[in-house]
Amino acid sequence: MKRSEIKIAQQRAEQMLNAAHIQLTPEEIVRIEVADFGLGQLERQGLELITYINTERYCAKELVLFPRQTCPEHLHPPIADEPGKQETFRCRGGHVYLYVEGEPTPVIAAMIPPGSQEYYTVRHEIVLYPGEQYTIEPGIKHWFQAGEQGAIISEFSSTSRDEFDIFTDAHIQRMPVIHEDE
Amino acid sequence: MKRSEIKIAQQRAEQMLNAAHIQLTPEEIVRIEVADFGLGQLERQGLELITYINTERYCAKELVLFPRQTCPEHLHPPIADEPGKQETFRCRGGHVYLYVEGEPTPVIAAMIPPGSQEYYTVRHEIVLYPGEQYTIEPGIKHWFQAGEQGAIISEFSSTSRDEFDIFTDAHIQRMPVIHEDE
Repeated sequence: MKRSEIKIAQQRAEQMLNAAHIQLTPEEIVRIEVADFGLGQLERQGLELITYINTERYCAKELVLFPRQTCPEHLHPPIADEPGKQETFRCRGGHVYLYVEGEPTPVIAAMIPPGSQEYYTVRHEIVLYPGEQYTIEPGIKHWFQAGEQGAIISEFSSTSRDEFDIFTDAHIQRMPVIHEDE
Repeated sequence: MKRSEIKIAQQRAEQMLNAAHIQLTPEEIVRIEVADFGLGQLERQGLELITYINTERYCAKELVLFPRQTCPEHLHPPIADEPGKQETFRCRGGHVYLYVEGEPTPVIAAMIPPGSQEYYTVRHEIVLYPGEQYTIEPGIKHWFQAGEQGAIISEFSSTSRDEFDIFTDAHIQRMPVIHEDE
């Protein structure tokens, strides 16, 4: 991803957080993380996030999804003697379609990113509106997409070790490669 | 505390959360916890809270303080082989005066509840406005008071075991005794 693209996505995420009355400090605004998962189609498959705190015991983040933006399917594996990350998604603004393992929903509301059909394998749908939440247990595959207005999600979890996430799409690089174009 | 008092405090907390654009589900609204710590002066020493999630690994709550309401000094002790609770306070609305162990602030901004001077022993002041946060390490004594507009604080933490909290004021009962008056 180009530095200039990242800056634009950061500004857009900040505006969405402002609209949802969620305030960040200036120091946090500049470290909003923009993940395109190395796929080069941020608007379709991507995620913006700010980590408030990540200690050896717990983590809290705010996730921002642009309209219909999708976080690709992945799971959190066990690390050393610790079970994988357990996480609670609480919708704060917009709405989100979340998919986890389990009975597939016959007709899902999300639109799977074109060309990536095979990397979205779990289809048990949960829809979250503001104030609603869902807890994803360790090791469970999941993916999620914002509705037409985008979405803001508070994530409460055990310690976050994003670099170990396992994505169904083997092309994905979780950690961004940034090209300095300015 | 009387059931009728609890209901009034719950409604007030809900209104403050609404004003801060924080949405709860109907199920959450009825289980807003009202803690008067057995002191019978909720407006002065008390706390309203909603626990979103509390697993064996992490916890997330929203804390509501009425204007100048104070959460009394306490610490979170180790339980079995686990260190005490570690917690991050993130201010979401209003502002809060937080006191922890350390260099005492010469003139503090909070007003210590009359008659309880001796139970407020730590005086290192941290002031949090919306978007600002502070992490309290395990075993550290702390207390906090809202400013004139009250305060809303997101608490991210390790597992919460409130019943083991140790308060400086030995008269305090953390778990409420409710009198059914209606």
